[in-house]
Amino acid sequence: MRDAYVIGAGQTDFGAMPEESYRSLFETAYENAVDSVPDGFDGEAVDEAVVGNLGVGGRQLGLPGPAVTEHVGLHGVPCSRVENACAASGYAVRQAVQAVRSGMADVVVAGGVEVMSDMSSDVTKYWLGVSGETEWERLTGTTFAGVYAQMASAYLDRYDDATADHLSMAAVKNHANGAKNPHAHLGFECSMDQAVGAPIVADPLNLYHCCPTSDGASVALVASEDVVGEYTDDPVRIAGVGAASDRVGLFQRDDYTAVEASARAGEAAYEMAGVGPDELDFAEVHDCFAIAELLAYEDLGFCGRGEAPYLLEEGETDLDGDLPVNASGGLKSKGHPIGATGAGQVAEAFKQLTGQAGERQVEGAARGLTHNVGGSGGAAVVHVFEREREVAR
Amino acid sequence: MRDAYVIGAGQTDFGAMPEESYRSLFETAYENAVDSVPDGFDGEAVDEAVVGNLGVGGRQLGLPGPAVTEHVGLHGVPCSRVENACAASGYAVRQAVQAVRSGMADVVVAGGVEVMSDMSSDVTKYWLGVSGETEWERLTGTTFAGVYAQMASAYLDRYDDATADHLSMAAVKNHANGAKNPHAHLGFECSMDQAVGAPIVADPLNLYHCCPTSDGASVALVASEDVVGEYTDDPVRIAGVGAASDRVGLFQRDDYTAVEASARAGEAAYEMAGVGPDELDFAEVHDCFAIAELLAYEDLGFCGRGEAPYLLEEGETDLDGDLPVNASGGLKSKGHPIGATGAGQVAEAFKQLTGQAGERQVEGAARGLTHNVGGSGGAAVVHVFEREREVAR
Repeated sequence: MRDAYVIGAGQTDFGAMPEESYRSLFETAYENAVDSVPDGFDGEAVDEAVVGNLGVGGRQLGLPGPAVTEHVGLHGVPCSRVENACAASGYAVRQAVQAVRSGMADVVVAGGVEVMSDMSSDVTKYWLGVSGETEWERLTGTTFAGVYAQMASAYLDRYDDATADHLSMAAVKNHANGAKNPHAHLGFECSMDQAVGAPIVADPLNLYHCCPTSDGASVALVASEDVVGEYTDDPVRIAGVGAASDRVGLFQRDDYTAVEASARAGEAAYEMAGVGPDELDFAEVHDCFAIAELLAYEDLGFCGRGEAPYLLEEGETDLDGDLPVNASGGLKSKGHPIGATGAGQVAEAFKQLTGQAGERQVEGAARGLTHNVGGSGGAAVVHVFEREREVAR
Repeated sequence: MRDAYVIGAGQTDFGAMPEESYRSLFETAYENAVDSVPDGFDGEAVDEAVVGNLGVGGRQLGLPGPAVTEHVGLHGVPCSRVENACAASGYAVRQAVQAVRSGMADVVVAGGVEVMSDMSSDVTKYWLGVSGETEWERLTGTTFAGVYAQMASAYLDRYDDATADHLSMAAVKNHANGAKNPHAHLGFECSMDQAVGAPIVADPLNLYHCCPTSDGASVALVASEDVVGEYTDDPVRIAGVGAASDRVGLFQRDDYTAVEASARAGEAAYEMAGVGPDELDFAEVHDCFAIAELLAYEDLGFCGRGEAPYLLEEGETDLDGDLPVNASGGLKSKGHPIGATGAGQVAEAFKQLTGQAGERQVEGAARGLTHNVGGSGGAAVVHVFEREREVAR
C-alpha cells in the first residue's frame, strides 16, 4: 500500500477567542498549513477532507465538515466529520492515511476545530460530560475531572512512590514548554509551589492538574508517496498508525491505572512503523489531566508500570531529557480545543521534525509520536512520524 | 487496490420505538447483519467499526461509536463516528471501503443509528435545523421542509410540465413499495387522492411529500477480497464509490433544481464501477422530500434535466418498471432515522442482490445503486453494488 506523508501542518493560537468563529478558526489553521508546505500548495489538488469536531448545539451540529471546508474554497471535495470525543482529529488524520493508502485520494486535508469558550460553565460541564459514559457517569454527576480523579486515586494508591507531587511535576514541565510556544493558551511558566498549592478540582487533581477549555483549529495536509515530491523534498512520513476503542465507561474496565486503548493503539503504531518506544526522539501525549500523562508513559512503553514518577523525577521527559514529552506544552499549557487537539499534536510533530519549533525545538528530532485519547480512554489513536531524510542516514 | 464486498447487512424496523435505546437498536441491526452472512460470522474477525450518527444532547454525544460497538462486544476494535447529517452512514460505508482498500482492515462493521421519536417537536425542529446552514437558514426560521420547498418551487417554476402531482406520484409509488417491507415505518399504501389532498407543510410540499421522523439502526458488514471467500461464495461487490460536498446553504448555490454533490458523487461512482445508469437494475435514492427523488433521477442520470416527471408518469421507476427506485419504500415510507438511513439503503441493496427482498424483490437484480444525501446537498455519497455471480455471466 502507498505510504502517506505530512507535507504541511498548522494551527491557530489555542485560547479563548470570542471574536473568532469555527469557520474563521479553521481558515487560519488551513492557511497556516498551506503556508508551511515547502514547495507551495494549491487547494485545487485536494481530493478529500476530514474534519474532527465534537460539536455543540448552537452552531453547525450537522455537516460541520463541509461547513468549514467550503469556507476555505473546498466545496465539492468529499468531506466528512469524524468524531471520537477528544480524539476526533487524531482519527481524522488516521482517516486521511486510509484514504491515501486506499488509492482513493492523493491529497487530503485532515483537521479539526472546536469553539468552547463562549459557553456558560454549566453548558461546558454538560457538554464535556456527554463524552463520558452517559447513564452511569454523567447522570450520576461525574464530570471528566471526576473520572480522571478516580484514575489518579487508583494510581497513587497502587504505587507507593507515586504522589500528587508527580502530577504537579508534569504540569510544571508542560508549562515550561508551553511558555516557549507562541500558540499556547496558558503560555506561562508555573513553579512547583504553585502547581502543588493550587485549589482542588476533584481530589487528588488540583487546578494545575487539569487542562483548560480552549478554542482553536488545526490542519495537517497529507499526501501520497506518488505526489509528495511535488510539495517537498524533505517529507515527514506517517510511518505508523494505530487505533483502538474500549468500554466508554471507566467503571466497566478492569484496571483504572492503565488505558488499554492507548496501549493497543501504541502497539499497532509501533508494529506498523517497525520501531519501538526506545527509538523515539519526542512524543506529544494526551495530558487532559496530569494523571493521563503518567499513564501514557506506561501505556506507550516509555517505562514500565508504576515507573512514570521516576521519569518525571529524573527529567527524562523534559525538553532536554532523553525523550521530551509535550514539547508543545501539551493539553495542559498549549490548550485543548477538543476537536482540534489531535491534528494540533500532528502540527507540533511536523514542526519538530522540520526544525521549525523555535525555542522548544527538540535537538535532532527525526522520529516522534502523537497520542490522542477520546473520553477517559473509550478511543485512542497513535501515530509515528519520521523525517525521512534523517532516519535514512 | 483490494476490492471490498458486502458479506451481510441488516437493519431494525424503522419507526417510533420509545422502548428501544440507541444501543439496543444497534444491537438488533448488528445481529440481523451477522445472521445474514451465508457462511457465518464471528465478531472476533472485526478489524474496524464506523458508526454513522447525527446525535443529539441527552444521549451519548461524544463517542457514540464506541458506545454502541462495545454493546455488541466489539470494544477494543478501532471505531469512529462519521457524521454528514443524513448521509452519515452512507459515508460510514464509504469509510469502510477505504479501510479495506488501504490494507488496514479485512473486516469492517459499517452502520448507523438514530433515536428521534422521543423528542418534543420543538427539539426535532431545532435539531434538524442545525443540519441546514445555521446562520442564514436555521436562524431565519427555515426548517428542512422549507429548504426543500424552495427547491420544489424552483423546479415546478422551471419546467412547465412538472406539477405538484408528480411529487405525489413519487409518494404513492414509495408507499406502495413500503407496504411490502416489514421494516417500514409507514408501511401502508396511499392513494393518489390522499397524496394530493394532504395538508400543506411548506408550500408546495404537503404531508405526503415529507418523510417521517424515525428511530432505527442499520449495519453492513464489509470484507476485503482476501477474506470474502470465508463468508460467502455469492458476494456483493462494492463496485463503485463516489462522494462530494457542496456549499451547505442552499442560498449559496447557483441552481436550486439540481444537487451538484449528488451529480458529482454519482459520476465518481459510475466511473469507478465502469458502468452507467443504463446498466442499473434498481436504485435506492434519498427521498427525504418528494422533490429530492425527482432531482435524484436527474442528478444520477436516470433521465435528462426536467424529465423526472415523465419517468414517474410512465411508471419507469415502479417496482415493475425499467429501473425500480426505492423498492424499500424509500425514506418516505420505510422511514428516515438520520444516521441509519445510508447503511439501511445498503442493507436493502444487499437484500435485493441476494434475492431476499420478499414481496418487493426486483426481478433479476444484479446491479444496484444507493444514494444518500446530507442536509440539502451539502454532502452526498453514492455506491454501486454488483452481485458478482450475476454480472459475470
